[in-house]
Amino acid sequence: MALKLYVHRVSQPSRALVIFCKSNGIEFEEAHIDLMKKQHKSPDFLEINPMGQVPSMVHGDFKLFESHAILTYLTAAYPEVADHWYPSDIKQRAKVQSVLDWHHSNLRRGAVGYIFNSKLAPAFGIPLNPQAAAEGEKTLLASLSTLDSFWLTDSGKFLVGQDEPSVADLSLVCELMQLEFLEEDDRKRILGPFKKVQQWIEDTKIATNPHFDEVHETLFQARAMILKQIPTGEKSEA
Amino acid sequence: MALKLYVHRVSQPSRALVIFCKSNGIEFEEAHIDLMKKQHKSPDFLEINPMGQVPSMVHGDFKLFESHAILTYLTAAYPEVADHWYPSDIKQRAKVQSVLDWHHSNLRRGAVGYIFNSKLAPAFGIPLNPQAAAEGEKTLLASLSTLDSFWLTDSGKFLVGQDEPSVADLSLVCELMQLEFLEEDDRKRILGPFKKVQQWIEDTKIATNPHFDEVHETLFQARAMILKQIPTGEKSEA
Repeated sequence: MALKLYVHRVSQPSRALVIFCKSNGIEFEEAHIDLMKKQHKSPDFLEINPMGQVPSMVHGDFKLFESHAILTYLTAAYPEVADHWYPSDIKQRAKVQSVLDWHHSNLRRGAVGYIFNSKLAPAFGIPLNPQAAAEGEKTLLASLSTLDSFWLTDSGKFLVGQDEPSVADLSLVCELMQLEFLEEDDRKRILGPFKKVQQWIEDTKIATNPHFDEVHETLFQARAMILKQIPTGEKSEA
Repeated sequence: MALKLYVHRVSQPSRALVIFCKSNGIEFEEAHIDLMKKQHKSPDFLEINPMGQVPSMVHGDFKLFESHAILTYLTAAYPEVADHWYPSDIKQRAKVQSVLDWHHSNLRRGAVGYIFNSKLAPAFGIPLNPQAAAEGEKTLLASLSTLDSFWLTDSGKFLVGQDEPSVADLSLVCELMQLEFLEEDDRKRILGPFKKVQQWIEDTKIATNPHFDEVHETLFQARAMILKQIPTGEKSEA
């Protein structure tokens, strides 16, 4: 059954999905949906996902969106996917699911709120919003603290004490890679205090390379392009 | 194995969990954590859930938080739970999971943002925030429109075309019951245009009664108490 993924590699959940498939030898066609060209709002794409968001998936004639739902669906649809990605043990699975659910209103909300409103918005024709950025930063720092002191305290290298990554590691680490859009000083200021988080990002890269680095090349290219377009110190009020 | 749920029935995901267990004949002990008395931040409760949030669960010695993770865990831990609550068919399950994931940054974010900042905040010692309320209202209305025009368009009475409710119906309808904290005019203004949503709320009540109404009694008592405490027209700037 043909698998087609509609993604833009500057989108963090898009990257998680592409890295997951490549790491598991799942064959798929990658349809590039350029967010900067607003292709996610085109009539053709809205037929695939009425929410107008990437990533989206079509498997045979089955359409699905929301990256966590797609990732966990693929672990069931492709039995060759190793158990650690979404454990069959119901308690371990519940813990992975708990991280995935926590992510939405914590790390994701904080990282998107801070990075978009302090850096990326002008690339999408939207003014910077210092107040929203400040709220995002607060949520981002609190989430990093929770990751460092709670989610990563267990015995294993990965979330909820696993020795090998789950879909939650991939989703959350791809989210944190958006910090690459920040100036280096700012990124160091934010990530610096969280040593376990830094080690976990490295461990997740290692566990999914060469795919992790290859899929993130687009992020670094976009970063160079976007930073060039933004005059230093550009600010506009909310 | 003993099941203990730490809940406050004014919390919408707490109610979803209690109604789910009662509807499925799952025996549990209900530990009341009074949010107004800040019991969710007490050292004893932080031992149960370091995030300091309800609902939380302890099953034997297994601790879990995040209501969606708890609900889906219970469908696996109690095989007597009927399949429609979290379908074993992988595509149907993925669709339910997609709604659950969509909920976090859409209906939940909008409903909490609007209702808390326009009505409930003073009961927790926090000033009203008209700007945050306006942002919440926008997200809430967009989410109701998506529910009415997309999630509820399928053949069945319930989300993603089911004839019987899933955990997603219960989670989202309990969220919408928070609208009861609003003045009647305001609630009608918000829900009025969305006929399918109104019917679906009724259908979910019917499918889970008498438990739905019994568990919501606390909400109506809290509503009367909170509305009495708030002087009409009280506003404070963000």
